[in-house]
Amino acid sequence: MTKSPSPSLDDYRVPLFGDKKAGKFALADVDPSAKPFSTGSKDGDRDHLTEVGQKIDVQQERLHAQRHDRVLLVLQGMDTSGKDGTIRGVFHEVDPLGLRIVAFRAPTPIEASRDFLWRVHMQVPGAGELAVFNRSHYEDVLVPRVLGQIDAAECERRYAQIRDFERMLAETGTTIIKCMLHISKDEQKRRIQARIDDPTKHWKFDVSDLEARKQWDAYQLAYQDALAATSTDYAPWYVIPADSKTHRNVMVAELLLRLMDGLKLEFPPAKPELNGMKIE
Amino acid sequence: MTKSPSPSLDDYRVPLFGDKKAGKFALADVDPSAKPFSTGSKDGDRDHLTEVGQKIDVQQERLHAQRHDRVLLVLQGMDTSGKDGTIRGVFHEVDPLGLRIVAFRAPTPIEASRDFLWRVHMQVPGAGELAVFNRSHYEDVLVPRVLGQIDAAECERRYAQIRDFERMLAETGTTIIKCMLHISKDEQKRRIQARIDDPTKHWKFDVSDLEARKQWDAYQLAYQDALAATSTDYAPWYVIPADSKTHRNVMVAELLLRLMDGLKLEFPPAKPELNGMKIE
Repeated sequence: MTKSPSPSLDDYRVPLFGDKKAGKFALADVDPSAKPFSTGSKDGDRDHLTEVGQKIDVQQERLHAQRHDRVLLVLQGMDTSGKDGTIRGVFHEVDPLGLRIVAFRAPTPIEASRDFLWRVHMQVPGAGELAVFNRSHYEDVLVPRVLGQIDAAECERRYAQIRDFERMLAETGTTIIKCMLHISKDEQKRRIQARIDDPTKHWKFDVSDLEARKQWDAYQLAYQDALAATSTDYAPWYVIPADSKTHRNVMVAELLLRLMDGLKLEFPPAKPELNGMKIE
Repeated sequence: MTKSPSPSLDDYRVPLFGDKKAGKFALADVDPSAKPFSTGSKDGDRDHLTEVGQKIDVQQERLHAQRHDRVLLVLQGMDTSGKDGTIRGVFHEVDPLGLRIVAFRAPTPIEASRDFLWRVHMQVPGAGELAVFNRSHYEDVLVPRVLGQIDAAECERRYAQIRDFERMLAETGTTIIKCMLHISKDEQKRRIQARIDDPTKHWKFDVSDLEARKQWDAYQLAYQDALAATSTDYAPWYVIPADSKTHRNVMVAELLLRLMDGLKLEFPPAKPELNGMKIE
């Protein structure tokens, strides 16, 4: 997580669990207002986002066509960190075919009566699908930990269960990437205030959301521990500076594109039996 | 389905089941190459589609915000009629949040061992969702009928079961619109030939798809009967001339926008307890 003269996406990867560096990971070391990949202007960044989005679309069409690989993008972050906006921004150029957005809200009684991975497992991407989790099973090592509903031992068990679950997904053909949208407490203040000051935005805000803000430091620590315990080579975590919305979208899009490029996706092979065929 | 001097979307609505006109409905009376809502130029039509798409996006944001109404768009049509392309074209401007695309393929053994509505029921839109069915339960009154796997009596029973199912969905808060993408046999020939001539498009085509083309007239009749038997005030069918891709998208988008405008969607009301609140 050190800054190099020429920034790399990997500078924003959380050290892998088990690495000697993992213990030194501090969320506070990442500046939420950083824009390391900016072109220098907002317009330039927007154009760049469109370009990357179009490249993702090309890869997405191949993924959909070959119906073999599966891709999972997990988005987490504090309230107003921009999970919804990231989905809109990153996927604006992408064909909705084969794209599935899954929002996890407070568990229903049926969900709560099962293990915390049950509802998540049901929503994993199928062959040829790109699934985006808007919140995820990580809520279950954040909220209950901060509220004191689970103790440290249970939290560690859940980290291990998550690693096992994600490794199984990876081993069975799913490529996973996880992004924590990292905003500053000041930026959250501005965004919440903006929602309050605009009555048409009140639906995005509930007074109870302020409880999490009051526990800001506890949540930052819960995130830091969860990320360090579950960043793996098969499902790495990236911390995305998210005070700038456009730059945040650029970074998530770049990460997703790099991942999809790495899959070496190809259209299914031509069918020899169709060569020269003339339709009546 | 008669042509008026100033064309209306309703000219393309299939007469409602039970109407005296319903018996006279003939799919062949709809010209697949018609472009009644064209601006006169392809560029003009594209710009118009973008405008309508942006208006759908505004309505979609309200739908997502209020989390109450549900919208279901069903797309059916012969191979190459453009179901995938319609989804891409109509929803290009629409936030993927709250949009869910569901493709129904050949039933799995688990699906086939239940009634034909079972897998469909599982995929109906939830509160605040817009679901698009790419194929649907209508496959079950088309393919098995043409292949002689069900007799006329069973087909009639299924029509009635579909009407009952869709009425229940409508009564419980889902607004339904169904579009049959209507292409000519000649246009299908051109499109299949284009797929054959481009090896990167072979994945979109299987030699077995030609079986349905050989039964073109039987499928047209099966569509005609199914549409006439299941076009209702709570779930009307529209026949969309689909030889022109852009114009096809415009018509589906216009229908969807009209339907969503009709819902009088509003953002949830402001919360008085937030008035004047200052965030710390």
